[in-house]
Amino acid sequence: MDTAQKQRWALTLSYDGSRFYGWQKQAGGVPTVQTALETALAQIAGESVATTVAGRTDTGVHATAQVVHFDTTAVRPQQAWVRGVNTHLPEGIAVLHAQQVAPEFHARFDAYGRHYRYLLESAPVRSPLLKNRAGWTHLKLDIGQMRQAAALLIGEQDFSSFRAAECQAKSPVKTIYRADLTQSAGLVRLDLHGNAFLHHMVRNIMGALVYVGSGRLSVEGFATLIQERSRLKAPPTFMPDGLYLTGVDYPEAYGIIRPQIPEWL
Amino acid sequence: MDTAQKQRWALTLSYDGSRFYGWQKQAGGVPTVQTALETALAQIAGESVATTVAGRTDTGVHATAQVVHFDTTAVRPQQAWVRGVNTHLPEGIAVLHAQQVAPEFHARFDAYGRHYRYLLESAPVRSPLLKNRAGWTHLKLDIGQMRQAAALLIGEQDFSSFRAAECQAKSPVKTIYRADLTQSAGLVRLDLHGNAFLHHMVRNIMGALVYVGSGRLSVEGFATLIQERSRLKAPPTFMPDGLYLTGVDYPEAYGIIRPQIPEWL
Repeated sequence: MDTAQKQRWALTLSYDGSRFYGWQKQAGGVPTVQTALETALAQIAGESVATTVAGRTDTGVHATAQVVHFDTTAVRPQQAWVRGVNTHLPEGIAVLHAQQVAPEFHARFDAYGRHYRYLLESAPVRSPLLKNRAGWTHLKLDIGQMRQAAALLIGEQDFSSFRAAECQAKSPVKTIYRADLTQSAGLVRLDLHGNAFLHHMVRNIMGALVYVGSGRLSVEGFATLIQERSRLKAPPTFMPDGLYLTGVDYPEAYGIIRPQIPEWL
Repeated sequence: MDTAQKQRWALTLSYDGSRFYGWQKQAGGVPTVQTALETALAQIAGESVATTVAGRTDTGVHATAQVVHFDTTAVRPQQAWVRGVNTHLPEGIAVLHAQQVAPEFHARFDAYGRHYRYLLESAPVRSPLLKNRAGWTHLKLDIGQMRQAAALLIGEQDFSSFRAAECQAKSPVKTIYRADLTQSAGLVRLDLHGNAFLHHMVRNIMGALVYVGSGRLSVEGFATLIQERSRLKAPPTFMPDGLYLTGVDYPEAYGIIRPQIPEWL
């Protein structure tokens, strides 16, 4: 019988999604974020460690503030879960912060909001410095039109038009609190804040916004697209390269620390 | 006797310096930007092509708008020198623009101003997303102090304190027109505009500014450092990771196009 007391820890994690086949552990030695993290945690804990994540990310999708929790009987100082784990992680992932949390804290079920950012380059030639860091289109974009369309996302709505076929969410109804579009030279930034997101939702939204920006879809057409609640008539999913999970909201009582990110990441 | 008419072309180039051993061609198959570019140009021209660059960059240093010129007898449409060359370039370099120029245009000797940007991350753990894109220090920085020090760089001055031993410039006297420091979350941006820069000058300036920001050197000490005109007492050269050549100034008559860059690259 194991009488050791279990402790629950929460980690804030950043990773370069272009180096991994998504978050989720997979058979066959495929490099995923979860596999890399659990391997490194086991080195520090001296026992196997199972992690639970706030939001699974797909291949190519980045995180600046992913949150995971795990239980362990190993008693280690806080910095062992940051610097110690980081020495065992491959290039492309880092633990930014570790904190012991209440045993009832759950990285996924306690999350009541998620923040995503999409960076999109609009230029005739793709910048070698933005590859794997921003999506790209050679099309010129009308940001004013895109901003009007983005504003239509706000509120509680059925987002079936932006839902991937494989999506496992119970309901397509989600609430978007904020949808801000900004431009700086040839780089466009979309910041979305919502209670939850469907599978591929941000990339599907970006696909439709690029249609609006390039004149293939009107703002009214974008409104109709949402109302039709059908993926069939929607523009294709946009590339993952520019997508970042930038924050997860938890009840304040848990005291989960969220790092600030630069205006342009 | 070669009777074919030579044409002079100017290219605007962007590259990820972390993938190359600097600009300059080297013996022994070392990957450099010049080697990659001349190999790709020869494929399009069907003859060997020698390039002249506005500003040689070191290993790890990036460019968003490097300028080169070359002469060729090959007659090709403008897009052959952009898209055609890009298909022959390795990952990490791209020709952004090509234009035929007056035969007297010289990428280096006609340049009367250079723009450099340094991005510096200040955070306890280095972001995996900013690696090779920004320098990094774990120290907390006082941006107000750094800004005061940066302002002291402006004007025509002897910059021997920031000059590498191997520097081949005729004179250590250069003019800085602009030295702007901005911060967004944990990311600091230094924009320098000057008539010319000494070898390692921006990295040496950044090394000294980090000393100021972290309290190891006062603003007055920074002023004294400039006045002493000696590299011996100066803080060490900072890492190349965050350094970008962002623009070169030419007389307007040449019509050299300079791409705009995002606020945060």
